[in-house]
Amino acid sequence: MNSPATPGRDPIAEARRQWVAHGWDDAAPGMAAVTSIMRAQQLLLTQIDGLLRPFGLTFARFELLRLLSFATEQRMTMRRAGQRLQVHPTSLTSLAARLAEDGHVERVANPKDGRSVVLVLTGSGERLVEEATAVLNAEVFETIGLSAEDVAALVEVLSRFRAGRGDFAL
Amino acid sequence: MNSPATPGRDPIAEARRQWVAHGWDDAAPGMAAVTSIMRAQQLLLTQIDGLLRPFGLTFARFELLRLLSFATEQRMTMRRAGQRLQVHPTSLTSLAARLAEDGHVERVANPKDGRSVVLVLTGSGERLVEEATAVLNAEVFETIGLSAEDVAALVEVLSRFRAGRGDFAL
Repeated sequence: MNSPATPGRDPIAEARRQWVAHGWDDAAPGMAAVTSIMRAQQLLLTQIDGLLRPFGLTFARFELLRLLSFATEQRMTMRRAGQRLQVHPTSLTSLAARLAEDGHVERVANPKDGRSVVLVLTGSGERLVEEATAVLNAEVFETIGLSAEDVAALVEVLSRFRAGRGDFAL
Repeated sequence: MNSPATPGRDPIAEARRQWVAHGWDDAAPGMAAVTSIMRAQQLLLTQIDGLLRPFGLTFARFELLRLLSFATEQRMTMRRAGQRLQVHPTSLTSLAARLAEDGHVERVANPKDGRSVVLVLTGSGERLVEEATAVLNAEVFETIGLSAEDVAALVEVLSRFRAGRGDFAL
């Protein structure tokens, strides 16, 4: 029922042709860039969440454990963790609640400020994030499937993109 | 309570330094690339979903309407739409249900095969997707905030990345 020629074609190149055909030439490259980022993220998230499922983790929960494991005394205020991970306070609260339930973090009152909450990595959280990191390093990060030049160009261009949108100061 | 030097630093550059400090040199560039894609996607999705909210659309719903609007007779089988958008059948069913509820698509039995379902763009869906496209073109795609060279490099590298993961055949 489908045209036999279509499987295998790049849907983004196809969309780009359509954009140009509709006279949206000025928007076509940006559309292709945005859609490329969206699809790359989707491919990565599917793979990563699959690899992390046996650990009871998602990429978002992994990132929070990883951040705490790098922090001084393996602890950080909720507020700062949210800033570093760019996560909305509501989402961070639910990430932290789930990790606390599983015994990987503890939520304690900030001794310097009774109202705010500090997240502390537990021994179980530390062991888990080390194991999960080893898997992601081997299965995703070391085997990204791009040349060193492509990886460098990608990181550089996306860093300009992110800085331009206020993700950080260049 | 936070070090005054930290706001504004690039958290990905920071994570990369940590990766190297832990001896994960081979994984550091890939980690930076993956995390860059994730954060760029997050920035874009937040902006795009905000722009589409007044239309009652998300980016996923927009993409489905856009795909139908480009299709011959503005219709496509669910199966083919799912392949083109790389959306899991369950997610596509719920996307289509929501758009049908709002009157933007109709779900009809495939005349060539009674068991499968064809999605048809309605007049209301067509008007909506044209308006939403004009907004995304002006506010996102034409104003992506990168040079033409950066946009071209980004699309090219991500196309190699996607092809390497079976997203399409190069």
